[in-house]
Amino acid sequence: MSTELFDRPLSVVNVGIPWFCDGIRAAGAEAIQVDWRPPALPPNVMAAFARHAERITAANQEAVSRILSARPRLVTLGRALDLIPGMTPDTILHAGPPIAWPRMCGPMQGAVMGALLYERRAGTVEEARDLAASGAIRFSPCHDHASVGPMAGIISASMPVFVVRNDEVGAQAFCTMNEGLGKVLRYGAYSPEVIQRLDWMADLLFPVLAEAVKALGGIDLRAIIAQALHMGDEVHNRNRAATSLFLRILAPAIVETAARDAAAEVLRFIDGNDHFFLNLSMASCKVSLDSARGIPSSSVVVAMARNGTEFGVQASGTGSAWFTAPAPVPDALFFPGFSKADANPDIGDSAITETAGLGGFAIAAAPAIVQFVGGAARDAVGYTLAMYEITAAEHTAYRIPGLDFRGTPVGIDLVKVARTGLQPFIDTGVAHREPGIGQVGAGVVRAPIEPFLAAARALAFALEPTLKES
Amino acid sequence: MSTELFDRPLSVVNVGIPWFCDGIRAAGAEAIQVDWRPPALPPNVMAAFARHAERITAANQEAVSRILSARPRLVTLGRALDLIPGMTPDTILHAGPPIAWPRMCGPMQGAVMGALLYERRAGTVEEARDLAASGAIRFSPCHDHASVGPMAGIISASMPVFVVRNDEVGAQAFCTMNEGLGKVLRYGAYSPEVIQRLDWMADLLFPVLAEAVKALGGIDLRAIIAQALHMGDEVHNRNRAATSLFLRILAPAIVETAARDAAAEVLRFIDGNDHFFLNLSMASCKVSLDSARGIPSSSVVVAMARNGTEFGVQASGTGSAWFTAPAPVPDALFFPGFSKADANPDIGDSAITETAGLGGFAIAAAPAIVQFVGGAARDAVGYTLAMYEITAAEHTAYRIPGLDFRGTPVGIDLVKVARTGLQPFIDTGVAHREPGIGQVGAGVVRAPIEPFLAAARALAFALEPTLKES
Repeated sequence: MSTELFDRPLSVVNVGIPWFCDGIRAAGAEAIQVDWRPPALPPNVMAAFARHAERITAANQEAVSRILSARPRLVTLGRALDLIPGMTPDTILHAGPPIAWPRMCGPMQGAVMGALLYERRAGTVEEARDLAASGAIRFSPCHDHASVGPMAGIISASMPVFVVRNDEVGAQAFCTMNEGLGKVLRYGAYSPEVIQRLDWMADLLFPVLAEAVKALGGIDLRAIIAQALHMGDEVHNRNRAATSLFLRILAPAIVETAARDAAAEVLRFIDGNDHFFLNLSMASCKVSLDSARGIPSSSVVVAMARNGTEFGVQASGTGSAWFTAPAPVPDALFFPGFSKADANPDIGDSAITETAGLGGFAIAAAPAIVQFVGGAARDAVGYTLAMYEITAAEHTAYRIPGLDFRGTPVGIDLVKVARTGLQPFIDTGVAHREPGIGQVGAGVVRAPIEPFLAAARALAFALEPTLKES
Repeated sequence: MSTELFDRPLSVVNVGIPWFCDGIRAAGAEAIQVDWRPPALPPNVMAAFARHAERITAANQEAVSRILSARPRLVTLGRALDLIPGMTPDTILHAGPPIAWPRMCGPMQGAVMGALLYERRAGTVEEARDLAASGAIRFSPCHDHASVGPMAGIISASMPVFVVRNDEVGAQAFCTMNEGLGKVLRYGAYSPEVIQRLDWMADLLFPVLAEAVKALGGIDLRAIIAQALHMGDEVHNRNRAATSLFLRILAPAIVETAARDAAAEVLRFIDGNDHFFLNLSMASCKVSLDSARGIPSSSVVVAMARNGTEFGVQASGTGSAWFTAPAPVPDALFFPGFSKADANPDIGDSAITETAGLGGFAIAAAPAIVQFVGGAARDAVGYTLAMYEITAAEHTAYRIPGLDFRGTPVGIDLVKVARTGLQPFIDTGVAHREPGIGQVGAGVVRAPIEPFLAAARALAFALEPTLKES
């Protein structure tokens, strides 16, 4: 790209897929298309996929069939230490692929410090930072512990978590409760008000919800998500309908099981946070996708996750390996006083929603979100339609009214990504790059192509161990 | 139309507007277009509108400006007798234009008998029928008493009603609380379970809601409707989102003001009825449109309402006159065991939603409803787009995501209806034609053109008293 480009008065330079420009132009902004194609795999690697197409297709059908038949239900809540596999008092789980303390981005470091303050392992921010850096804390990805976390995705031992069960296979996934907006841990804030809110959530919200969920005998999350897609949500950046439906189901049980003041406080807290359902959406997607892990020859992606430094991908046929690339900075609508210069690179396990055919993949169901970046409703349709080009199936339970109730595109296929060069489209929140500040905007981002190509290459070599790169 | 037509194997005969056929064809059904144009006004009457175009336009701008600036709020609940203007112990209000007992359709007669049983004015169905026919009961349209009622629309003296206030002009509108599904009075059922439910609503639901609304200091219904349109509702045949949002706002206040058991019962009742918000939507539309009544020269429609026998229209510039035609039978999806032969002609004041730019006029926001009659999402868009041809404005608060947040078509213009021959498109429930049975389906209907032409003609003669018909 020549520097000359930047001397012209333009708003957006699109490097890569031309149809992204269309949306920007349709919105009235200026857009210049730079002729660039994403990196591609060598022809003989691509040829390997053609040779093994039947095996791959069969494996992908199995993977997709498991994802589609998952029936995520919220069955209970409990403490992370008591429930999450591999959790210890010294473990802190985080979003995205594995990362050590020194390489963690600002908001993740901030959230880790906040968690150590919350756990009373440190009395001051400095003590928390020293402890985090000391080597005494074991950091591990949520995804490696049947868990997911939005933004920084921090889960520490005494945090309460939702337990979402897929009865089809008897598996479980875990996620914390959503803190709401403002100064919150997941965006890297750790001030006393952040810790106070976490304490309130553990002391009051947690027992009230646990009792109500118990009284209800669990809550069918798949049904709520299916409804919410008919109500303007894509259950990643927009969860207003799902939160409303969840609250409707829960309210009578809360009234019957909690003290009056506690019940009112909890109902008001959930009503005040349209993202309350997000963490349940994420855990539903996680437990659905986990059932599709470890199928030999399958090119279906089972996790996309970002730690704020790197964007990581895991696929069904490539075991527990993470394939990573630097995390991109989202295109976003920034809160007053902030700009892209303040934005941390993309962060959070919430891209599990896109991996499961929701979020950005279902954005045609939630055109309001496209307005975040100045787009129009028709752009939202375009984004979803493009995702059918890189997925293995259409969802049978999750459908989009505006596309005549077509099922959402689900099961990202590494081979199709490699063939088309189309990057998965992700809705996302944006954290400030410094610890202790919090959210600065919300927007959209395209997954970097490199981790998908690396995973595809690994799959090719697994399919054909004698393969040589040309 | 020749009888020969009916010897052919066809699904739908469309008489009139061709674009209705497009939807049926797009849905894969067979459709035959019969060359028919709706009745039209004589050329010299149409010429009068051209001569007075400036006056009409100015008057319509005033009418629409009042409709758009209305801010309906639920302010309290009370007894019909205490609040509704002109209500007496012997009065029964009904949906649609004026009608006497003998001409009332089955479901309206059934609902009247149910109301007399509910009021303990009769001990048996026979006594109730005799009393209704005796002349001792004064029947009057809801619309003439600042009220609206869904389906039969029966309001009797001791029924609790919502009070919806338009603070802009200090006016109020009234509507009963929605009974839910199954055997309900508004569909003409009057069995003991119907009366029992009405008793429960008066004895428990009413005081609980009244206290909660008081504690909240009122509820902004315009804000809820605006949100609901972004969430798949058109707040006539689909009210799931609006009901959910209403419940979210109300729940904490209910918990704080009601006894535990009563609070749980009420929350469960509202959660169990996705149409609970309908009556609030209707009262919001009524209070908004009433502010536009009585503007000389205005051709804006202020009420469309059906009593199950006739379809009636009132316009701003034609005073309190009702213009009527026989009510059409809706195209509907019928419940198992029922067919169009069981269907009562169109009934209810709920077309006040279409009159206010919601319901069928906003159906592009709620494509799920078109499925009722075998249509597709794109048909819903077509129906809404057509309504812009017969309306005076686009709503500034109520917007449709799928149309890039374009305001809904609002302010039906008699002159435009007369010019285009386009019939207003209405979502509707369908009652059994016999009393005592209840709902048999839901669907869509086109308003008959004749009442609009009659109202337009009356307006032309008001504009130009010397006008002669050619």
